Amino acid sequence: MSDRQKITPVILSGGSGTRLWPMSRPERPKQFLSLIGPESLFTMALRRVDDQSRFNPPIIVANAAHAGLVQDQLAGREAVILLEPCARNTAPAIALAALAATSADAPLLIMPSDQVISETAAFMAAVDAALPLVQKGWLSTFGIAPTAPETGYGYIKQGVELAPGVRKVERFIEKPDAAKASTMLAEGGYAWNGGIFLMRADRFLEELTHFAPEMARTAAQSMERAERNPPFIRPEQAAFELSPSDSVDYAVMEKADRVAVVPVSMGWSDVGSWDALYDFGSTTDNNHVLVDVQNCLVKSDGIRVAAVGVQDLIVVASGNDVLIIPRGRSQEVKRIIESMKSKGS
Amino acid sequence: MSDRQKITPVILSGGSGTRLWPMSRPERPKQFLSLIGPESLFTMALRRVDDQSRFNPPIIVANAAHAGLVQDQLAGREAVILLEPCARNTAPAIALAALAATSADAPLLIMPSDQVISETAAFMAAVDAALPLVQKGWLSTFGIAPTAPETGYGYIKQGVELAPGVRKVERFIEKPDAAKASTMLAEGGYAWNGGIFLMRADRFLEELTHFAPEMARTAAQSMERAERNPPFIRPEQAAFELSPSDSVDYAVMEKADRVAVVPVSMGWSDVGSWDALYDFGSTTDNNHVLVDVQNCLVKSDGIRVAAVGVQDLIVVASGNDVLIIPRGRSQEVKRIIESMKSKGS
Repeated sequence: MSDRQKITPVILSGGSGTRLWPMSRPERPKQFLSLIGPESLFTMALRRVDDQSRFNPPIIVANAAHAGLVQDQLAGREAVILLEPCARNTAPAIALAALAATSADAPLLIMPSDQVISETAAFMAAVDAALPLVQKGWLSTFGIAPTAPETGYGYIKQGVELAPGVRKVERFIEKPDAAKASTMLAEGGYAWNGGIFLMRADRFLEELTHFAPEMARTAAQSMERAERNPPFIRPEQAAFELSPSDSVDYAVMEKADRVAVVPVSMGWSDVGSWDALYDFGSTTDNNHVLVDVQNCLVKSDGIRVAAVGVQDLIVVASGNDVLIIPRGRSQEVKRIIESMKSKGS
Repeated sequence: MSDRQKITPVILSGGSGTRLWPMSRPERPKQFLSLIGPESLFTMALRRVDDQSRFNPPIIVANAAHAGLVQDQLAGREAVILLEPCARNTAPAIALAALAATSADAPLLIMPSDQVISETAAFMAAVDAALPLVQKGWLSTFGIAPTAPETGYGYIKQGVELAPGVRKVERFIEKPDAAKASTMLAEGGYAWNGGIFLMRADRFLEELTHFAPEMARTAAQSMERAERNPPFIRPEQAAFELSPSDSVDYAVMEKADRVAVVPVSMGWSDVGSWDALYDFGSTTDNNHVLVDVQNCLVKSDGIRVAAVGVQDLIVVASGNDVLIIPRGRSQEVKRIIESMKSKGS
C-alpha cells in the first residue's frame, strides 16, 4: 500500500450542540465527552485515522474557545489545528481545511468529530472503494445504510454504479417527514447523509469557487492573513466574518455534478440525543443507588442519583444540573434550553 | 390569665429520621429543616409556645451532636437544653426533662419537634381543656382527629367524658393493619396518637418509678451527675447508657390508670415522608426548569432540576444527592438507605 497516495483527515469539531445538555455545554460540547466508553468522540475520531501508512496528520477545524481541549485530547499527536474565529457552518470550515492542506490534490477525508463509527474496517473499505474516483476528481460521500425511518437526517438517493460499491448520487433529499422516510426505507436505494466526505482539496475549492464564490474568496483571504503559530492556524477574523454561512451539502454537494456515494454499514451513530445514546448501548454509571429501576439511562459526572421504582427515564447529572426526561422524549431537551434562555439563566 | 399556673414546654428533638433523605441526614435531621415555609419544624414548635404569659422557657431534649443547631435555631430565646449522651427513646428523654423542671408540680407540655400543627389556636384550646385535670394529677394526651385509615400511627380509643372536650383513655391501640384502621375510622371514637402530652413532672416520675423503676433510677442518677453549663445540661453518660430504651407510650401511658385524651383537629402532620409533605401542601421550589411537569414535588438545596414531560414524581436534591421516586412510594426511601448501607457508602 506504500504507493497509494496518503489521505489527509479533516476533523470538523466546531459544533457546540445542546442536545446532550447538561453534559454537553458550549464550553465542553459533546465531541469532547466520553459518552460511549472511556474515550471522547473526538479521540475516537482521531484514532480512526491514526494509521500513518495511510493518513497524513489530521487537520482539525475547531472553535477558538476549544483550543485547549483540542490540544489536550490530541495527546501529543501531530496535527494542524485551524481555529475558526466564528462559526460559519461546514462549507467555509472545509474551505479553510482545503486551503491548509499541504498538497493541492491531497484527498481529504472529512469527518464530523461528534459521531461514532464502531466498525472502522468497514469504513476504511468504503474509503478504499471511493479513492480511485476521488483521485480522478469526483467528490464522494459515504451513505449510512438506514436502519429506521429517521426524520432527523438528510437522505441520499443512490444512482448508477460507478465502480464496485460506489454509485453516482442521484439526488440529495432534505430531512423528510415520517411518511416519506418510511417510503424511502421500504423502497430501498436510499442512504442517510452522515456528513462524511472524501474529495481532493483542489476539486472542492474549484466547485466552491463555482457555486459559492463569495465563500471561496473570504476563506482564501482569511487564510492569507492567518496568524500561524504551529500547531495553530488562526484565520483572520475580519475576512472570515464576511463569509456566507452554509452547509457543505447546500453550498456544494447538492449542486456539483460528479458526486459519488459509497453506501456503507459501519455501526454509525450521530449520538444526537440521550435516546440515541441509550439505543447505542450507553450504560448507566455504577455509582448510583437504583432500586427497582428498569430501562433507564443514568449518567453523572459527580452528583449521585438515588431512585426507587422508576422506569424508562433518562437521568443525566452534570455540574449542578440534573435532567430528568422520559425515554423517547430526549429531543425535548431543547425545550429546557429555551426555557432557561427565556428565564435568562 | 395571670393566676393560671405556667406550663413548661418540653420539646423532644432527639430524632434522626431518615425518611426524608436526602434532605434529612443524621447531622441535620428533619426537625431542623425548613420543609414547610421558611421556618424549620423546630422553630415552628418553639413559636407555638412563645407566649410568656402562659409558658415558661422550654426544655429542649436533643442529641448532643445537634447542640449547635439547637442553639442557632433558638435564636436568642431562653431555654434549657438537655443534651442526651445517647438515644434511649422517649420515656427516658421525658424523665430527664421532668427532673430538669424547676418546680415538681409544673405541668409539662411535651411535643415532638418534628411535627406541624397549623392551627395553634385549636391546640391551645385543647391544652386549656386538659389543664385542670392535669393539675389534679391526670396524665393527658392529645388525640388527633383521624382523616384517613392511616396504618403508620398508633390509635387511642376514647372512653367516658371527664370534662368538656376531655375523655378518659379507654385503651391505646398499636399501629393497625389497613382493615382495622378502616374499621376504627368508620366506627368513630378513635384518635391518632401524635405523641403530644400534658402532665405534671412529679406525676410522670411517680408513674415511671412504678412501671419502669430502672428507667427512673438511671435518669435520676444521670441528672444528679450532670454537667451543667447554662443553657446546656449534659446528663452523665455512664448512668444514662444503662437506661432501658422504651417509648413513653409503652413504658407509662398504656399502663397508667388516670390517663385522659383531648381529641383535637389542629392541622396536624408528622411530615413523615415526602408524600406526606406533598399532601400537606409543600411546594416545588421556583428555581427549577420544569416543562410539561405535573403533580410533582421538586425540592433542592442547591442542585438545579430540569425536567420535561414527567408526572407524579418526587425529586429531592440535597448536597451531592438526588432522590427520584414516584409519588405514593416515598416510604421506600428506606430501601435506598439500606442499599447504601450494604454498599458501605
